[in-house]
Amino acid sequence: MSARTIVFVSDGTGITAETLGNGLLSQFDGIEFRHVRFPFTDSLAKADDCLQHIADIARQEGQRPVVIMTMMDEQIARRIRTADALSLDLFDAFIMPLEQELGQKSTHSVGRTHGQENREYTKRIAAMNFALAHDDGVSDTDLKNADIILVGVSRSGKTPTCLYLSLQFSLKVANYPLIPEDFERDDLPSKLHPYRNKLFGLTISPEQLHRIRNERRQNSKYASLENCRYEVAAAERMMRKNDIQWFDTTSRSIEELAVQLMQALGR
Amino acid sequence: MSARTIVFVSDGTGITAETLGNGLLSQFDGIEFRHVRFPFTDSLAKADDCLQHIADIARQEGQRPVVIMTMMDEQIARRIRTADALSLDLFDAFIMPLEQELGQKSTHSVGRTHGQENREYTKRIAAMNFALAHDDGVSDTDLKNADIILVGVSRSGKTPTCLYLSLQFSLKVANYPLIPEDFERDDLPSKLHPYRNKLFGLTISPEQLHRIRNERRQNSKYASLENCRYEVAAAERMMRKNDIQWFDTTSRSIEELAVQLMQALGR
Repeated sequence: MSARTIVFVSDGTGITAETLGNGLLSQFDGIEFRHVRFPFTDSLAKADDCLQHIADIARQEGQRPVVIMTMMDEQIARRIRTADALSLDLFDAFIMPLEQELGQKSTHSVGRTHGQENREYTKRIAAMNFALAHDDGVSDTDLKNADIILVGVSRSGKTPTCLYLSLQFSLKVANYPLIPEDFERDDLPSKLHPYRNKLFGLTISPEQLHRIRNERRQNSKYASLENCRYEVAAAERMMRKNDIQWFDTTSRSIEELAVQLMQALGR
Repeated sequence: MSARTIVFVSDGTGITAETLGNGLLSQFDGIEFRHVRFPFTDSLAKADDCLQHIADIARQEGQRPVVIMTMMDEQIARRIRTADALSLDLFDAFIMPLEQELGQKSTHSVGRTHGQENREYTKRIAAMNFALAHDDGVSDTDLKNADIILVGVSRSGKTPTCLYLSLQFSLKVANYPLIPEDFERDDLPSKLHPYRNKLFGLTISPEQLHRIRNERRQNSKYASLENCRYEVAAAERMMRKNDIQWFDTTSRSIEELAVQLMQALGR
C-alpha cells in the first residue's frame, strides 16, 4: 500500500481543514495517509517552522506532501504556499467569490469563532449538559424543553446519538430506555406521553445488539441472542403501535442518524 | 442587519459542507445567515426538488441564495450548479488537483465513510463509551488505557472537553475532579500517581466558575465566589507542585482546548 503524508495547517484549530480533508481523502483508495498537524500557525515565524517540517518530510519520504490549510491571515497563507507541496487552501478558494456575492470584505481575522462569549458556543455547552442530565431516563426534570426525545432498548445507540446531536447541532436531546417492564405493561413510559411530537425511536438488529451487549456482560440473559430478539421485536411493536418514527442504527453512522433525525424533525 | 440564505447540499450528511461553511461565513460581519439543509441529495430527482427550493428562496427573498455543497456524484453536482445561486462546490475545487498529485482517480462514491464496519467509527464509539464510563472519577477500571486524564475543580470544563476529544479524535479520555479533600490532604487522588505522563489540568477564572456554579446551586457555599477563589487557587497550587501542565478554559473554545491538549500530548 502506498503512503502519503498530509499536512494540515491552520491559524486556528485546524479542525475544519482536517474534517474536509478526511472527506476528500476518503475518495482515494489504496493509499495510506499519515496526518501531520500544525494548528495555531499564527505568525510568520511559526509558518517558517512549518515550512521546515514540510521540507524534512519531502526529503525523508522522497515525495512532497500534500498541504491542506485554512488560513485567515493572507500573509501567513502566502508564506505556506511557498512550500514544495501541493497546497490546497480551503479559505482562499472560497472567500473571494463570497466577498463578491455578499458585497463586503471578509474580516480575515484569526479566531473569530472562539471565546466563551460566543452565543453559539454557550448554547452548545448547554445542549451537551442537557444531554448528559437527561441520559438513559435518569431525569425527566426538563423534558418539555427537549428538542428530541429518543427511545430504544438498552445499547441501541441512544447515548452517542444524543451527544452527537448536542455537540454538532446544539439540540437538547433526552433519551429513555425501553425496558422489559414497559413491554409487559405494553405501554410507553407514562412520562413520555405528553411529548409524542418529539419522540423518535432507535432500533438495531438483534444479532448486532447481542454482540454489543455480550462485550459488557458476557453470557448473561441480558446479552443472549434470544433475549435481544425478544426485546427488539417488543420495542418495534410498541413504536409501531404508538406511531413513533424509528431509525435502524445497525448500519448507519452517528452522523447519518443525526442528520436523518434533524430531517424528521423538519429542521 | 442584512440577511442571506445559505443552502447546504450534499449527497452525504452535509456535515462537512456546513462545518467548512461556518468557518467561511464567520468571516462576514453584520449579515445574518439563515441555514437551509439538503442532506442525502443522491438522485437527480432530489436535485430537482432542491433546485425548486432554491428558486423559491430567490423569489421570496428577492435575492439569490449561496449554495455550499459537497457532492461525490459529478452528475448530480452539475445539476445543482444550474441553480441561480452562487455555488461553492468544496469537492469539485480540490478533487481534481488531488487526483493529479496522487496519480490516481478518486472513487467518487457516495457514503464511503459510512457504515458500522468502519474501523475508525468503531474506535470513535469505543472512545466515547470510555469517556462516559470514566467521567468525573466514577470509575478507575481502565485508567491505564486512557490516552489522557484530565483533572480540575468541579465545573471547570472537564466533561465537555473529554467528550469532544473522544468524538472528534477517538481519544480515550478520563477525568477526575479535584475536591476539597484533595486540597486538605495536599495530594492528588492516589490512583492518579501512576499516570503522571498523561495527566493534564484544566483551570478557570474564579469569577467564571462562580457564575457557572451559581446556575446550578444558587447561593450555595459551593458556588460562592469566595469558595471558587479558594478551590481554583488550591488546584493551581497542586498542579504546579506536581508539575502538571494545565490549560485555562475561561476564554477558550472546546475545539481550541482539544487541539492544544493533542499538541501537549505530542500528537
